[in-house]
Formats: sequence, C-alpha cells, structure tokens
Amino acid sequence: MIRAGIVGGTGYTGVELLRLLALHPKVNITRVTSRGDADKPVAEIYPNLRGFVKNTFVEPTIENLLDCDVVFFATPNGTAMRMAPDLLARGIKVIDLAADFRLKDPAAWSHWYGEPHACPALLSEAVYGLPEVNREAIRQASLVACPGCYPTSVQLGLLPLLEAGVVNHDRIIADVKSGVSGAGRKAEIPILMSETGESLKAYSVKGHRHWPEIRQGLEQMVGKSVGLTFVPHLIPMIRGIHATLYTVLKDGAPDLQSLFEQRYRHEPFVDVLPAGAHPDTRNVRGVNRCQIAVHRPLDGDTVVVLSVIDNLVKGAAGQAVQNMNLMFGLDEQAGLSAIGLYP
Amino acid sequence: MIRAGIVGGTGYTGVELLRLLALHPKVNITRVTSRGDADKPVAEIYPNLRGFVKNTFVEPTIENLLDCDVVFFATPNGTAMRMAPDLLARGIKVIDLAADFRLKDPAAWSHWYGEPHACPALLSEAVYGLPEVNREAIRQASLVACPGCYPTSVQLGLLPLLEAGVVNHDRIIADVKSGVSGAGRKAEIPILMSETGESLKAYSVKGHRHWPEIRQGLEQMVGKSVGLTFVPHLIPMIRGIHATLYTVLKDGAPDLQSLFEQRYRHEPFVDVLPAGAHPDTRNVRGVNRCQIAVHRPLDGDTVVVLSVIDNLVKGAAGQAVQNMNLMFGLDEQAGLSAIGLYP
Amino acid sequence: MIRAGIVGGTGYTGVELLRLLALHPKVNITRVTSRGDADKPVAEIYPNLRGFVKNTFVEPTIENLLDCDVVFFATPNGTAMRMAPDLLARGIKVIDLAADFRLKDPAAWSHWYGEPHACPALLSEAVYGLPEVNREAIRQASLVACPGCYPTSVQLGLLPLLEAGVVNHDRIIADVKSGVSGAGRKAEIPILMSETGESLKAYSVKGHRHWPEIRQGLEQMVGKSVGLTFVPHLIPMIRGIHATLYTVLKDGAPDLQSLFEQRYRHEPFVDVLPAGAHPDTRNVRGVNRCQIAVHRPLDGDTVVVLSVIDNLVKGAAGQAVQNMNLMFGLDEQAGLSAIGLYP
Amino acid sequence: MIRAGIVGGTGYTGVELLRLLALHPKVNITRVTSRGDADKPVAEIYPNLRGFVKNTFVEPTIENLLDCDVVFFATPNGTAMRMAPDLLARGIKVIDLAADFRLKDPAAWSHWYGEPHACPALLSEAVYGLPEVNREAIRQASLVACPGCYPTSVQLGLLPLLEAGVVNHDRIIADVKSGVSGAGRKAEIPILMSETGESLKAYSVKGHRHWPEIRQGLEQMVGKSVGLTFVPHLIPMIRGIHATLYTVLKDGAPDLQSLFEQRYRHEPFVDVLPAGAHPDTRNVRGVNRCQIAVHRPLDGDTVVVLSVIDNLVKGAAGQAVQNMNLMFGLDEQAGLSAIGLYP
Repeated sequence: MIRAGIVGGTGYTGVELLRLLALHPKVNITRVTSRGDADKPVAEIYPNLRGFVKNTFVEPTIENLLDCDVVFFATPNGTAMRMAPDLLARGIKVIDLAADFRLKDPAAWSHWYGEPHACPALLSEAVYGLPEVNREAIRQASLVACPGCYPTSVQLGLLPLLEAGVVNHDRIIADVKSGVSGAGRKAEIPILMSETGESLKAYSVKGHRHWPEIRQGLEQMVGKSVGLTFVPHLIPMIRGIHATLYTVLKDGAPDLQSLFEQRYRHEPFVDVLPAGAHPDTRNVRGVNRCQIAVHRPLDGDTVVVLSVIDNLVKGAAGQAVQNMNLMFGLDEQAGLSAIGLYP
Repeated sequence: MIRAGIVGGTGYTGVELLRLLALHPKVNITRVTSRGDADKPVAEIYPNLRGFVKNTFVEPTIENLLDCDVVFFATPNGTAMRMAPDLLARGIKVIDLAADFRLKDPAAWSHWYGEPHACPALLSEAVYGLPEVNREAIRQASLVACPGCYPTSVQLGLLPLLEAGVVNHDRIIADVKSGVSGAGRKAEIPILMSETGESLKAYSVKGHRHWPEIRQGLEQMVGKSVGLTFVPHLIPMIRGIHATLYTVLKDGAPDLQSLFEQRYRHEPFVDVLPAGAHPDTRNVRGVNRCQIAVHRPLDGDTVVVLSVIDNLVKGAAGQAVQNMNLMFGLDEQAGLSAIGLYP
Repeated sequence: MIRAGIVGGTGYTGVELLRLLALHPKVNITRVTSRGDADKPVAEIYPNLRGFVKNTFVEPTIENLLDCDVVFFATPNGTAMRMAPDLLARGIKVIDLAADFRLKDPAAWSHWYGEPHACPALLSEAVYGLPEVNREAIRQASLVACPGCYPTSVQLGLLPLLEAGVVNHDRIIADVKSGVSGAGRKAEIPILMSETGESLKAYSVKGHRHWPEIRQGLEQMVGKSVGLTFVPHLIPMIRGIHATLYTVLKDGAPDLQSLFEQRYRHEPFVDVLPAGAHPDTRNVRGVNRCQIAVHRPLDGDTVVVLSVIDNLVKGAAGQAVQNMNLMFGLDEQAGLSAIGLYP
Repeated sequence: MIRAGIVGGTGYTGVELLRLLALHPKVNITRVTSRGDADKPVAEIYPNLRGFVKNTFVEPTIENLLDCDVVFFATPNGTAMRMAPDLLARGIKVIDLAADFRLKDPAAWSHWYGEPHACPALLSEAVYGLPEVNREAIRQASLVACPGCYPTSVQLGLLPLLEAGVVNHDRIIADVKSGVSGAGRKAEIPILMSETGESLKAYSVKGHRHWPEIRQGLEQMVGKSVGLTFVPHLIPMIRGIHATLYTVLKDGAPDLQSLFEQRYRHEPFVDVLPAGAHPDTRNVRGVNRCQIAVHRPLDGDTVVVLSVIDNLVKGAAGQAVQNMNLMFGLDEQAGLSAIGLYP
C-alpha cells in the first residue's frame, strides 16, 4: 500500500483528496496536517468522512511526513515550494495541487504570485500534471504540479485543435464559468451565500493568475506563441466549471467531431459527446471526467468548444490521484471509477 | 451475478438505481424499461452514465423481464401492483420503490391513493423494507416495499425512543423538509427552478400520503396507536431530507445519547452524531446513510431529534439496493460504500 | 422631511434600510456610519444604490448624529445600548434593529447576551416595535426595539390564537426556517455558499437568543407563562423566513379562518391567505408583509400555522420604517408600498 | 390615466408587467387575459399581487381589449402578429414583448420562427423598442417591438464601441449567461429545479433566434454587415443576464471609459460603472437598469465589455413600460424608480 500524506487537509481540495483516497484500493492515508486544527479528528471537521477517515490532524512539519511515500499539497500558494525540496531529498514524491510549480519561468511566477520563488531550480524538474499531454513524463516524475481548474478545462478543450494546427492561435478566447468552491474555504465576505447566490459576475478581467499557466500550456501544444484572452466568471453553484472556447478555423479544416474523438479515444477521463450535444456541469459532478462538445455556429469558421469538469475532481483532487496512479505504476483509473451524481 | 431489471428507468429514483447498480460488484443490469424512451440508449438520456451503462431502454412488458432475478419498480404509484403478481409467480423477486405495497390495510391504501388496490392479497406478504426494523424478514422476502423518503427519515429518528418506550406517543410532531428531487422528474410548473428556487413552503398540511405509512411504522414500534402530525416542506435544494421530530419525555428518562448510540451501534447505515451536533443534509449527499442527533432544548422534557438522509439514496434507491443485498444473501454494504460529497 | 441617521450601514439590515429610506417620500438620509468604511461613498460598497444614495460613510460618533431626528441602529448587539442614552437625552428618537432593548428583564438580557446591560433603566421605557400588538405605544415612543426576524414571524402567526385563548399555551412548538441573510454579512466560513448551498440544518437547538424574546411576547398575549420549544433552521436561500407553528386546540374552538381574518382585517402588512393555502416565502420577497395560513391537519385538534416574511423587511428594516412612520405621525404605509418580486 | 391591457398575463413577463403597472402612477390595468385561467382572480395565481391587482382574467379576444389605450403582448411568439392589426386599426397602441415584430425582414422572421409572418407589412412600421437607440421614433410609434433579453444586454454593451467605430465589426463574440426565468413559465422537464439547479450549460450553439435580432441591431449601429458569434448559457439562478462581449480595437482607440460614460451620460437606465469594476447581476435585480463595465485585459487590443440586466425588467417588462412612457409622453422614468434588491 502507498503511504500518502496530505498537507493542508482542511480546504476543499484537501477534503476531496481525503474522500478519494479513503476508498482508494492501494492507498493508506498516513498523515493529514492542519496548523489550525492539529489534534482534532479529521472527521470532526468533515462529518461526511465519519467512519471512513480515522486520522487526527497533525502539525505540518517535515518530521510528520517522513513515513510517507507521497505527499500531496492542498495548501495555499507558496507552501509547497518551501517544503518540497526537503521531501524530495528524502525520496518522497510530491504532488502539488497549488500553483507553486506550474509555471516554468521563475520571473513569470514571481510576477504573478507576488514574491520570489523559493526553489526556482525545481521549476524545470517539475512535471505539469496533465496526463492527456504529459503521461509518460508523469510516470517518471518525482514532483508533479497539478494544473489549475480553469487551465484543465481550457487546455483539454483546445488540445485537439491546437495539436492538429487547424485553428488560428493568435486570437483565442476562453470564457470560463466556475462554481464558488473554486474560491476555496476561506472566511471572506465576497464568497458568502448572500453575496454569491442568485448572482453572477466576471472577475479579474484585467488579468488572472491562470492566464500565464493556460498560455504556457497552449504554446507547448502549438509550438509557438499564442494570443489568449481569458475571462473567469463566478457562478451561483458549488461545483463545476464550464469553459466556452472560441477560435477561428484555418482553411480546409477537417471534420472536427472526428478530430476530437480520435484524439481522446484512449483517454479514460475525457469523454467527447456526440455531435450537437451541450455538456452540463452536473453530469461530471463528483467525478474525474471532462466532457467536451465541439460546434461550428451557423456552419461558419468560428469553432466553439464546450468543456466541463468538476473543479474539485478533474480540476484538482481527482487529477492529483490520477497523477499519483501514474507515478506509482498503478492502474490509472484506480480509485477514480465513480459515476457523476445526477440530479 | 444477479440479473437486475429496472422498470421505470427515466425518473430520478431510476437513474439513481442505475448509478448504484452499475458499479455494484455482484449485479448485472439486464433490463431497463421506459415506455416513452424505448429503443434509446440509457446513457443518451443520462450523460452521467456514459461508459458505465450500455443498456437500451425496452418496453415495460413482463416478457422483457423474464430473464431477471430481481425487478425494481422505480415507477409512479399503481404500476408495480399490476405487474408484481406475474413476476413473483415466475420466481422473480420484486422490490418496489413506489407506494404500492407499503400499507398493510387495503382500505387505507385505497383511501390515500384513490383507487382500489390491484392485488390486496399481496399486501400482507410484502415486507416493509426498512432493514433497521425488519432485517430478518427482508432476508426471506420475495416482495419488498421500500419505505418512502419522508417515512425513512422519521422512523429512523424515532425508533430508539419508541422502542424504549421513553416518550409519549400521542402527540408526535414531524416537521420534515425535502429537496425538490423528491417531487420527481415530471413536467410540472410548480417544480420549475423559477418556482421553487430561493423560496420555501409547506404543502399538503391537510394530509399527505406518507402520513399513514409513518403512523403504521411508528405503531409497530410502540405496539399501540400513535398520534402523529406530519408537515412536509419543499426546500430550494435538489437532494436531501431533514426531519425535525418533537416528542415529550416520560418521567425518569434515560440518557438519550446512549440510547441512540446503543440502538444503532451495529447498523452500517445509521450514524449517531456526538452530543450537541446538528446534522447537515449535505454530509449524506449521494450516500446510503442516515445521520442523527438528539437534543433536549434548555434541558426540558421535550426531545428534539434531527435526522437527515439523501432522499434518493437512503430514502429510495440506496435502501432498495440494501434490501436487495439482504434478499440475496450478499454483504449488506455491497455497492453502497461511498462517501458523501462535500461540499 | 425627517432627518434619519443609520448607524451600521454596511450590514444587510443597513443596506435594506438604505434601499427603503432612499425612496421614502418623507425622509432624508442625513448620516450613514461605518467604522471600517468611513469616507467611502455608500454606493461604492453597494452598487445597487448608485444614483439613489449620495451619502459618504462617516464615523459612528454622537457628534455625527446630532442633526438627525431619528437614528436607526443596524449594528451588532451591544452597540445601541451604549449610544442611545446620549441621543435620547438630546431629543433624538432611536430605533434599534438589534437586540439591545427587546427583553424587559435585565437579568435575562445579560444571561442570553453574555454581558451586563449598559442602560437597564431604558429597558422598561423601550417599546417593543411590533405594531400589530403595540401600535399606540409605538406612536408615543422615543425608543423602539424592533423585533427579531424569527420572533416577528412566530408572534404574528400565534397572536390570534393566543389572544382569543383558544389553544393550550404550555406546549407550543415553533419550527422556523430562515434564509442565510439572517446570519448577517460577516466573514465566517459556516455561511459561505459552499457551506450552506444545497444543504439544510437546524442550529442552536439547545437554546437560541430569540427564544426568550418570543416567549416574552407570547406571554404578554396570553397573560400567563407559556411553554415554548423553538428550533431554527438554516435554508439554502438568501431571503425569507417560514415559521411552522404547532399548538393544540382547546375544546369548542371557533372557526380558525374567521378568527385570523378578523384579527388582521385592518392590518396593512398582515395578509391572511384563503383557507387551504400554503404561503411561499418568495411571495413576500422584498416587501413589508407577513402572509399567514392556518390549518387543522386531518381535522384533528392540532393547529398548524404557516407564517412567512422577508427576514430583512418585515423581519428587520421594513418593520423599522413602519415603526418610524408611527413614531412621526406619518401614514403607516409611507415608503412601504412595494409588491413582492416574483419569480 | 392610461388604460392598459395585458394579453398573456400568466407568464413571467406578464406577472412582471402587472407588478410594475399596478404601482405606475398614470396607469389603470383595465384587462388581463389568459385563455387557461379566464374568470379566475389574477391574485389567486400570483399571491404577491394580493391587494394590488383586483382584476380577473378574461379571454384574449379583441372585444375584451377595446376599451384599452395600449395593449401589451406578453405571449408566446406568433400571437401578437394575429391580433395587432385589429387593435392598431382601432387606434389602440401595441407593445409586443415577444418576437413578432423584432426583425425587419419577413423572410428572416419566417426562417427563424418556422412559419410565415401573419402581417409582414407591419414589420417596417414597427419600431424596435430600445430607447437608447430609437427614443424619438418610439415617441411617435403605435407599434413597438420590445427587444429580447439577450439582445438588450448585448446591444447596450456594444453600442458605444460600434457607434464610435473604434472596434472591428467582423468578429464580435457575445458569450451570454441567463437565469432560468428567461425560459418562461412552461411545464417542461429541462427547466425543473432538479435539472437546472447546481449546473450550467450552453445551449443552441448551432444558432439561436436572438442571433438575427442582435445582428440586425449591431448592423444598424455600424452601418455595415457584422460578424457575430452568439452563445447563450443557462445559469442556476432565477433572474439576471450577464453578457461578456469580446471585440478587437482598431488602432488609435480613444479612452474607452470616457467613451462609455459620454454615450450614456443622459440615459436614465444605463449605468456605466467606474473603471476596473465588475458588475453583478444581483445589483440590478428587480429594476430597469443596465450596468456596464469596459475592460482591456492586460492592456491589449481586445476589449471586454461586461453588461448586466434583469432579464424580466430591462430585458422585458420594464423596457416595455419605458416604451409606453415614451409613447404616451409621460416621464420616461414613471413607475420605474425602484432600487435593486440586495442581497
């Protein structure tokens, strides 16, 4: 059994990791840390875990994590980069669900995250954990940077088009809508139910931290620089992301439905819907799955891709487990074969 | 493998059965019927099932069900009672998720459901499928009537008190709140999102069909007639039931927390919360679990029990699978060991 | 024009007061205070007020309020009792929307609010601002304590029964459901959308501060001590309260529908629905109105009253304006003649 | 007083018209028709109107409307075009909230609405009721076609840019999100709360009936043909539309904030937010207002406009009343000076 530690077990990605790992057939949850709730039983904070998770929160120290084979960081940005070097040096694999290792360029990281990177040398070593793009590298990796929730939905939606080179890459628009759990479990007025219920807004239109991450991923696909406009929106629901992606076809474009189906035919967690379909975020609720549809409105040259995920699963904890499965040579689907909750 | 048929696979209890059975280790879904959608793939109607359920809907005829070991009825009231006799005669077990076999008294059934019962003789043979009360009888049964969602939450909340005889049984109040999925998947204006969102109301205060069912169950527990007021409410959420139950303690009452913990200590799907807790419906979302807390406000002689379930799981499809497990000698928890989705 | 000041203009009752007073034909909003947002324009915090409210927040000092005829306190408990004496001494009327002056007994106040009362002598002078009970006293009052949201819904629902003496008063049950705006605009995790959306729970079953307030009001109606169980619930919606009230009829009870209609026939803000109706909270959304229905389930001797209000209007800011109208000899309905938003 | 009739008073735009007109200082509601609910009191169907609307529904015949000065059609598409000629011939003004008179080209109308137009000659006579564009023509009109909800949000968002000629007009993208009340009050499964709650989807990506209407409006602004991609989305909330609009700046573009503020400085119902703001749909809930913000992400040449309205007010009934005010020479704001409900 793989011995797993979770640093930062009191946020939404942390509890989602616990939910998935507690029933994973090859994993023991060895340590769960929390600075604020140390010594409390995990299931006291999260009653859904009663009877499934027996752990008690411990302090987030290196010592407390030494008996782990892998440590997940479900922490705010800036935590993993301070602990990862020590863990890696001791042969413990690290999977970061935050942003510390997502960007390759330390200067870009520092610009967007507002402080110098604590271990810039690790940025090149870290593997970006999008298995549909980097599966083989992930298998060999000791340090995996799980993609953000927005970047996962956008990159999976655009991957077939950009790899095939059938669309212009200088004016891509990603209009993306997220449930409020994406904002985390923080005591802040703007994410109260009275503030976000029954309302909708865009935010960070000026520039959002997921923009450089998405652009980096798209540029890797297309092999050259990409023009990207990314606008995130906050939606009055808890889970789910819906990316609506706009690009322009080059001349002589192939059948797009086939292009998508071919690209993803062996992918266990990407499901291309039939032509003409419109994915609902609810159909992937609670599961590690991306559902995608591709359209050409009025048969014109604009391509619209619709891509949905559960931000906490394929957009965070589920993808982290998928990466762990790859890193440890397990069945990629181990612990991830649930069906979306409907309704 | 048990060959299971589902009659009425297009409602919410039907799709929930499909979600649970598709991953059940001992079950093959042999037939799924739908009058309106016959010949369509099930996963076309329910995209969450894509890749998990390969069946195509068939017409709801006896012939189509003959190769089943068990048939679930996830149908409107009045359907199962017309087909069950034929199936039972052929040795096929029947589990009804509707109300056809819940009441023992044909006259009461006919009064509350507005038509004569089609096979009154079967009413006494049917076993009421609340395993926490009738486990042994369910093991022997060929015909099980799954309790309604409201009755499950109310009966599990009151069971320890009534069995122990520590409360008055002539003035019990059950104020129960349900998410809108309890109203089913029907094209009706009152359950539109624009009608039920951001609002709350009581309904059927004059008298609701679950009242005689609950009373029958409570009277069985206490061995005499019971006075019950039951008021259901429609809540702006999709899944979940919260029963708030009020009774008056007799003199010399025991420690209530211990009473509840003792009664349910071997029950796999009833979880008594620590003293002072208040259950949230979300913590049992998607799972076959009842969470219960018991209180005495201001240390007075009124007992308040809080009991939550997911109306589609422990209140319907999950309980049906639990019954099936018992009827076929399987592990009672087979296919039901999920963790509630949070948040 | 009446010159009105609002202390604590950044909470939900504060912004609701601003919404109502900004269009009131006889009021000028003279001062709006906020410790945290002093010097910011009010409409910058609340964009719904842009173009309607020109005020800038000022510090909450007595000096800043001296040019007011009336000061509303939309503050946390414990603020009004420290400023009211000074204002009253200068002839400024005070309307408190918090709990400082609701209880008559200083010991009870101190027990439930956890500190000594700062001006116990004013408790007897303060008039409890439920116009349907205390209209004439309110007209003469300088200091009005606006009822809490739960207490308003419960007292209006029980008033006709208790005044007429037709029900037992020793076992009254109030099962009350509230939208989350009742919890205020505070940076706290339990009222995040991810925590309260799609879920329902009871809270403070052991004892809630509104219990002594409700009991005091009911005892005034009936003229003797009352037995009350009060259980509040948090509902996944923003606005609205639904009280479900249970009492037992004495022998020889009159026609309840007539009793309610007669009691409220001249009340501008209480609307008794036709026999058999079930009020929805949405139908009073945004307006100063209580809709009530009275039922006898299965024609038994239990009376069930259903009473709905908007917690921020008839349960707070609207009732405060109604009180102000009475205190200043205005038309009681001035500024309050809106229609509920549907859907 | 203006005598107003409403044809189709049982849908959401109908009840919203009733809410607005019942308190309009210059209007008497003379007739409200409903085929299905004739002879029932209006307030029986809509309890929020109790005490405000005394009318009883009547059959939708010409005879029943002869004593009106103006008739509003809050009907499904295809109704107004069959009754308008008779009413106009009798000197009764007509305001259609449906789509019958929105398109100028009868062939386009027939293509998108699936039947021949019943009175194509009136299409050129009808005035498109967007006051910010056509105010003077509306003042003279006898027949006004109220814009759709999506088209209102999109056109108001793009108007300053297109009139000033500062953006390319061949690749405009309108990604628009709507609450479910936009789908109407119809007994249909896809708009049940259990289907639309806690989920999000795009729909009609292939082509939506509002596309030709929006394009016609944009082409009028710019004086030449326009390339438009329009993708509507269904959001789990009841009221509100948020348009996110993407265009590309030409060289030498002016200050966009000033451009928007100048264009709308005299418009009573369009509110340009300060630079950097992001409008929430809730801030215009229940009111006839469009709030707009304009951004240039990362200071690039893509312009992103955010435009929010309440789909039932500025997107339907409120705009209809605004048009009526203009047609009858009243104050344009009469009956429309409410403040948005927050929270």
